[in-house]
Amino acid sequence: MIANTPAPPYYAVIFSNMRTEINDGYEETALEMVRLAEAQVGYLGHESVRDGLGITISYWASLDAIRNWKQQTDHLFAQRMGREKWYSAYKTRICLVERDYEFSI
Amino acid sequence: MIANTPAPPYYAVIFSNMRTEINDGYEETALEMVRLAEAQVGYLGHESVRDGLGITISYWASLDAIRNWKQQTDHLFAQRMGREKWYSAYKTRICLVERDYEFSI
Repeated sequence: MIANTPAPPYYAVIFSNMRTEINDGYEETALEMVRLAEAQVGYLGHESVRDGLGITISYWASLDAIRNWKQQTDHLFAQRMGREKWYSAYKTRICLVERDYEFSI
Repeated sequence: MIANTPAPPYYAVIFSNMRTEINDGYEETALEMVRLAEAQVGYLGHESVRDGLGITISYWASLDAIRNWKQQTDHLFAQRMGREKWYSAYKTRICLVERDYEFSI
């Protein structure tokens, strides 16, 4: 579940969010957005957790790849639905991953 | 719960992790590390969620602030305990936040 990203540099989009109580279409759309993101050029992986606060981080090869994903037609529609129905607040941060290190048993 | 960070640029440390089944001292140490981080120069905020996968993101004014926090004595001890007891795997990513945008109802 920890994304197996390549050696830096690469980009991360941190999407921190709070949900409304409206579920209408949310789960289906979230799954569809993961499927579409995985098909985008430059997609490197993602990590997603929710426990009240939701954090979804997607990893990308370049800023161009992030721009293309942001403008993808179905994703634009999902972003609008997000603001109109599903999210009470969110913050998106576009980040250059400069270094990483890891540990596993 | 979404961190109220200043205008970019600033830094993010993404700590993605999986826990072992060992709880011995974990919660107390996690709370203490938040308290100590908040007291560090250059600390800007943090967001933390766990649901199986854990993601904790801390935000910092500079790479120096991150280095100082990484080398803080009690934090060094907690990092060692983390590898010996609490985490089965983790990945830490040091990121420059270049842009952000937000929404709220």
